[in-house]
Amino acid sequence: MHAYDTVELIRLKRDGGRFTADQARWLIAAYTTGEIADEQMSALAMAVFFTGMADEELAAWTQAIIDSGERLDFSRLGRPTADKHSTGGVGDKITLPLAPLVAACGVAVPQLSGRGLGHTGGTLDKLESIPGWRASLTNAEMYAQLESVGAVICAAGSGLAPADKKLYALRDVTGTVESIPLIASSIMGKKIAEGTGALVLDVKTGSGAFMKEEESARRLAETMVRLGTAAGVTTVALLTDMDTPLGRTAGNALEVGEAVEVLAGGGPADVVELTLALAREMVQAAGVDADPADVLASGRAMDAWRRMIAAQGGDPAAPLPVARHQQVLTATSKGTITRIDAWEVGLAAWRLGAGRARKEDPVQAAAGVELHVSVGDTVRAGQPLLTLHTDTPDRMARGEEAARRAITIGGTGTRRPLILDRIS
Amino acid sequence: MHAYDTVELIRLKRDGGRFTADQARWLIAAYTTGEIADEQMSALAMAVFFTGMADEELAAWTQAIIDSGERLDFSRLGRPTADKHSTGGVGDKITLPLAPLVAACGVAVPQLSGRGLGHTGGTLDKLESIPGWRASLTNAEMYAQLESVGAVICAAGSGLAPADKKLYALRDVTGTVESIPLIASSIMGKKIAEGTGALVLDVKTGSGAFMKEEESARRLAETMVRLGTAAGVTTVALLTDMDTPLGRTAGNALEVGEAVEVLAGGGPADVVELTLALAREMVQAAGVDADPADVLASGRAMDAWRRMIAAQGGDPAAPLPVARHQQVLTATSKGTITRIDAWEVGLAAWRLGAGRARKEDPVQAAAGVELHVSVGDTVRAGQPLLTLHTDTPDRMARGEEAARRAITIGGTGTRRPLILDRIS
Repeated sequence: MHAYDTVELIRLKRDGGRFTADQARWLIAAYTTGEIADEQMSALAMAVFFTGMADEELAAWTQAIIDSGERLDFSRLGRPTADKHSTGGVGDKITLPLAPLVAACGVAVPQLSGRGLGHTGGTLDKLESIPGWRASLTNAEMYAQLESVGAVICAAGSGLAPADKKLYALRDVTGTVESIPLIASSIMGKKIAEGTGALVLDVKTGSGAFMKEEESARRLAETMVRLGTAAGVTTVALLTDMDTPLGRTAGNALEVGEAVEVLAGGGPADVVELTLALAREMVQAAGVDADPADVLASGRAMDAWRRMIAAQGGDPAAPLPVARHQQVLTATSKGTITRIDAWEVGLAAWRLGAGRARKEDPVQAAAGVELHVSVGDTVRAGQPLLTLHTDTPDRMARGEEAARRAITIGGTGTRRPLILDRIS
Repeated sequence: MHAYDTVELIRLKRDGGRFTADQARWLIAAYTTGEIADEQMSALAMAVFFTGMADEELAAWTQAIIDSGERLDFSRLGRPTADKHSTGGVGDKITLPLAPLVAACGVAVPQLSGRGLGHTGGTLDKLESIPGWRASLTNAEMYAQLESVGAVICAAGSGLAPADKKLYALRDVTGTVESIPLIASSIMGKKIAEGTGALVLDVKTGSGAFMKEEESARRLAETMVRLGTAAGVTTVALLTDMDTPLGRTAGNALEVGEAVEVLAGGGPADVVELTLALAREMVQAAGVDADPADVLASGRAMDAWRRMIAAQGGDPAAPLPVARHQQVLTATSKGTITRIDAWEVGLAAWRLGAGRARKEDPVQAAAGVELHVSVGDTVRAGQPLLTLHTDTPDRMARGEEAARRAITIGGTGTRRPLILDRIS
């Protein structure tokens, strides 16, 4: 590979220029080896924030992220693979019922997940509230579980896309996270390296989403679909609402409980709707002829869930942890619930102990928010709106403060459609 | 001082916000102590490149740069002080005749200078071609020389504006040099810390200048004048042409020779014009009633030059070094000199050994370019255009290549006015 002058490339991007594919590849490779210093890459990332990246350079940049580590290969599994990635939202436990449901449809789901940071929870944090369950698997264990169960949700090994790990840690401390090409290449670099044959993206927009504006979320979705398609992975995105939390719970064990309800054929309508919509996309993208609604109703998804949890040491029958302190928040006036703000609910759950402020912080398995009402419900004064859960009573007051702001009671209220658009 | 979240401040600036004076001060102070990491400051510098700084935050930022080190004080000198700063150009030896001329007018000139990097020479490099001359003085020596001679040109001590040294070194490797607020605060932070009572800025624009575009140079000049004025330093800027090199020489000893010609009452018209214009501004800004043209004609500026050089160990009567290899470039056709490109002349001198590519490189005292023609001159084929000087013959060919591109022979040619505007 040709070597370049780092400062010249930073200036090129700063001044609105486009990297050649070779330059983009060199930048990622040289940053991974340390030839490009952190202070140079952060300046470059900020320049990208302002001037963007064209499709071709972004594809090369993403490919270089993939090439920085190992790439998993499930081509000899004997079953098609499909994975889902959500950009993150409050109460977003969809992966939990989705992975076993899609597996029960005959599509293998190799789902590498992360932990939560800030107001949205992480899938691994949620599953770790199940007694005995462990997130770390070797590649061989992961492969074996895909063969035996058809679904695995585990921590991404350090061998996948190490360039992205280094770059993301840098962006996190330099105010350069919120760049569409950098977000898109970070997500897609990891997902493509993971070796899935098809990928369905759940790109969220609204107060509780990373992308508050629908226009930005749409651009991110389009960029990721182009990147995946260019890399030979069948990629579809759903643009979904995150003004309102998903389901009735935000918090680790609370969300596992809700996921199990869905697998048992119940659960909140919005969680069921999105689980089925994403499952249909995954099954279709994998080229398998199955109806996820039928499979869910048959109980086979629940069977797959139990096997998936047990395969990773968890006891699917064990009771989930319950918070030592609970407090009910009631309506102060009568009226209609016009808004349940996802951001405030996420903040309340985070303050109660469900989330972490720093990567090394622990989370409380039982902490979180349990909603008793939905947008559009009519309530009378004194009616329970939600229950706050925490193991540490000193967290209750600040959690309550956010939770109180979350709910608006007014004249009329309707929630916008959950699925706003489909991008393929 | 209040402490802030660095990432929040980077995002604030990235999104077009303005720092409070307290935030701006904290950023510089925290960067100086290392609390803010290089990769954070470089991302912030890139954000400033895109979103700028308002007057108030830039003034606080500059004041923090000044406050990061010592501040010289010449208030008990018994004479007013004035200094000049040039943004740098090819053949810009103006400081050499200017400092002794202004001193001879009765205004003390404390001129802290730097070495050259790239295609423009540094004042210290030029003076170091004088046998015996030394650039490094203690503050006490500097003060004593200002009392005895009235002019001193020396290296800036490490105690002045250390925040700027750290920040400039960072900007240099992160593609964030070309930001008007960052350039303005870097220059003005050092110059205000230096303790001068008045400051005249020579802001150059054109192919050989740091600021190629007149509009950018004008904005830089205006920004610096506002910063100086706000800090209580009488500040005036001249906007001057740098499409064409200043005078007939580019190179260290060659430029000293030309400066001595000017002090002796001769020298190229453009060097004399700019020297006198800047001297008048400095004398006027210092509130002294003297006519620099009369003082130059009287020989008192030459006397001051000799004393200034001798005070720093130099022998003003010693012959200047002469390059071991010289080569004359002649006209290949007849016509009028329509352009002598400052950038190409600077590049030629640099390639011949007059400048350095890295801070630690040595420079050749005798290397450089000597022009025999001016814009507008009529030449015949075979007439000498310029002479290339170097001690290392293997540098000759690449120097010649740039020098040949420098000169355009065509139909008609006029140089734009040397002094384009005055900003106060």
